[in-house]
Amino acid sequence: MEEKETGRLEAFSDGVLAVAITLLVLNIQVPPRDSLLDGTLLAYLDKQWPTLLAFVASFATIGIMWINHHRLFTYIKRTDTVLFLLNLLLLLIIVFIPFPTALVAQQYAVHPDQHVAAALYSGTCVILAISFNLLWRYATYHNRLLGKDADTRAVAAISGQYLFGPIVYLIAFGLAWVNVLASIICNLLLALFFALPPRLPRRLQQEGEEAS
Amino acid sequence: MEEKETGRLEAFSDGVLAVAITLLVLNIQVPPRDSLLDGTLLAYLDKQWPTLLAFVASFATIGIMWINHHRLFTYIKRTDTVLFLLNLLLLLIIVFIPFPTALVAQQYAVHPDQHVAAALYSGTCVILAISFNLLWRYATYHNRLLGKDADTRAVAAISGQYLFGPIVYLIAFGLAWVNVLASIICNLLLALFFALPPRLPRRLQQEGEEAS
Amino acid sequence: MEEKETGRLEAFSDGVLAVAITLLVLNIQVPPRDSLLDGTLLAYLDKQWPTLLAFVASFATIGIMWINHHRLFTYIKRTDTVLFLLNLLLLLIIVFIPFPTALVAQQYAVHPDQHVAAALYSGTCVILAISFNLLWRYATYHNRLLGKDADTRAVAAISGQYLFGPIVYLIAFGLAWVNVLASIICNLLLALFFALPPRLPRRLQQEGEEAS
Amino acid sequence: MEEKETGRLEAFSDGVLAVAITLLVLNIQVPPRDSLLDGTLLAYLDKQWPTLLAFVASFATIGIMWINHHRLFTYIKRTDTVLFLLNLLLLLIIVFIPFPTALVAQQYAVHPDQHVAAALYSGTCVILAISFNLLWRYATYHNRLLGKDADTRAVAAISGQYLFGPIVYLIAFGLAWVNVLASIICNLLLALFFALPPRLPRRLQQEGEEAS
Repeated sequence: MEEKETGRLEAFSDGVLAVAITLLVLNIQVPPRDSLLDGTLLAYLDKQWPTLLAFVASFATIGIMWINHHRLFTYIKRTDTVLFLLNLLLLLIIVFIPFPTALVAQQYAVHPDQHVAAALYSGTCVILAISFNLLWRYATYHNRLLGKDADTRAVAAISGQYLFGPIVYLIAFGLAWVNVLASIICNLLLALFFALPPRLPRRLQQEGEEAS
Repeated sequence: MEEKETGRLEAFSDGVLAVAITLLVLNIQVPPRDSLLDGTLLAYLDKQWPTLLAFVASFATIGIMWINHHRLFTYIKRTDTVLFLLNLLLLLIIVFIPFPTALVAQQYAVHPDQHVAAALYSGTCVILAISFNLLWRYATYHNRLLGKDADTRAVAAISGQYLFGPIVYLIAFGLAWVNVLASIICNLLLALFFALPPRLPRRLQQEGEEAS
Repeated sequence: MEEKETGRLEAFSDGVLAVAITLLVLNIQVPPRDSLLDGTLLAYLDKQWPTLLAFVASFATIGIMWINHHRLFTYIKRTDTVLFLLNLLLLLIIVFIPFPTALVAQQYAVHPDQHVAAALYSGTCVILAISFNLLWRYATYHNRLLGKDADTRAVAAISGQYLFGPIVYLIAFGLAWVNVLASIICNLLLALFFALPPRLPRRLQQEGEEAS
Repeated sequence: MEEKETGRLEAFSDGVLAVAITLLVLNIQVPPRDSLLDGTLLAYLDKQWPTLLAFVASFATIGIMWINHHRLFTYIKRTDTVLFLLNLLLLLIIVFIPFPTALVAQQYAVHPDQHVAAALYSGTCVILAISFNLLWRYATYHNRLLGKDADTRAVAAISGQYLFGPIVYLIAFGLAWVNVLASIICNLLLALFFALPPRLPRRLQQEGEEAS
């Protein structure tokens, strides 16, 4: 099999995403010493649910980003300086994602009628989707950094799926100013959509996954 | 030997567990500037023992989870999107574990007669054991993601050991409402039980370990 | 292809840089509970821009250091204890970089006429550039730790580029006492300069990158 | 070459040590907003030197532990559950090391005549040295987990060097109650001693390093 050049890029990205996803747990605070009786402890845990929700949502988001990153680098086998820089841009935004996520969880829990946090969250997702597209288009343009045996139809299927991203996240961004809940649900559906592999004949998909 | 697809999944999981296990040390606080005389420092260190105990217990728990993860991926050689998602679920719960562990250590140190923390800890362990089972059953169902040369008896031995997990942790969960200390001891014994490899003829076990 | 000895050194360095680059996000604080109305939230975010700028600048700096580290270890294939120690020195300074970066961002935002933070930042960069040179000169001296097939011209091109570093950062250090803004801009241009591969015939460069 | 089983154990250990060494930087605090004028900033930085010293000392300690870990796993090629557990014990103590290091730096800066911190530091080092010995003796006993081609004299040289550890650290522990400075210097010399490879004929050493 063709030698992969992307080993250290993947190892570094895995490291960044692993740290980012695990740091999320620092937001869950142990209760103060004087609220350790069963009753007060339950009340404390009950008040923590927006924090827990933001923890799970951010964890799922970064996890899905990792799945996507893994999928792209099933096909990308070579590197150059531009790819390194585009990958850094992508990591920068993924690492930043927990901040708007926490903001949405907190603002929606307290003021469900306010819009700024949901707009910031969707806006960050628009930039994230654009970054994924930049990296993927740069790598696939004339098969620049793909493996020699990369399946053209599988590559085209991902390109098609990724084209959706920025457009639909822009819609979620617009929704944030009209109906915050609809915007949040739209974002969650999008995350699920990107977790799933693009539609392509089952046989091709398996080949792609076997090459990982 | 058969090409493994699980390289990046293992690297990412190693990263997450390494960060989670190391973040635990952040809970051990250096004493304030005015308690640095030998006498006050010893008193300070003495008061820290529940924190130290929680540190060691969480470290051991995550370490044993890593040993288990490593053992499973000795046999699992292929990946798909469902495995990625089940692995994320597993990591989510492992990363969360230090929170109920710290809670138990603190509540038991101050109020040994209170139950909520021990119940939350055992409850999290039930979910953790279920997640391990889900991942393992999904991967082994009709040898879906196992290596072609995977030893059937060794795989069955792990499946048998894992079946115990949720049931016995449920018992520990019930105990938490009756006798907190018995529940904690039950959980510690379970951790030890899962650290050890499943019972199977010595020859088979060695083969399994050599394949790692 | 020649066996590489540098696998674990690279993995450890990737880990350190991945953690350092991701920890930066801890500086971005979620607003307090009473400033979650849209108006106050926008005002809060507006006041955060020096923090955000320092986050992006530190992220870019560490990212570019990673690109450089990756480039050097495209050529370095063997290890010894001195290389381990020089690499530790390099990592020590890279891990420290976010501190003077945050200092410059904060001091310049509040007192653009003050010099100490900019001088400390440039001074750290001088030491960083010297560390990179030490590691590279030690490894390349009489091809001590290079691969047997290392391209002499590509190695010489990097040596030439790196010679610039300490000298130009010293100029930026001097500038910090005269004109802080000029010093900051000088540092940014230097970062960009080191992100790009050294000038050498296109054919050679590709070979170098393929060997990564 | 013989297949190594220790890949994931090394990756996980690299991750833990990388996180532990990088978390140290969290102890260096950016000054508060009202001390950003050049004069007050210099005064602030000047007061930070015990923190900086502890940072550098802990960084060097963990870095040297990594070099030692790397050296041992040049020879250890196979794994079993006991090795996993002994490695976890080792990591537990390495991760804990920054705590007594910070304690020594702070106590010595404020009360150079007090002994408890220096004793705790030396005591932790005794346990660390014992853990290294346990892991190494377990792995080398009758060549249990060594590679088939492991150089007997190189292995014996490490065993000899490691025997020193617990004994000399015990002396440093005793010194802590008599002369704190002598104890600290003794510990630093020991760290240096363990950073260097054990004495053995130059030819053998190179073979050992080439096998890494």
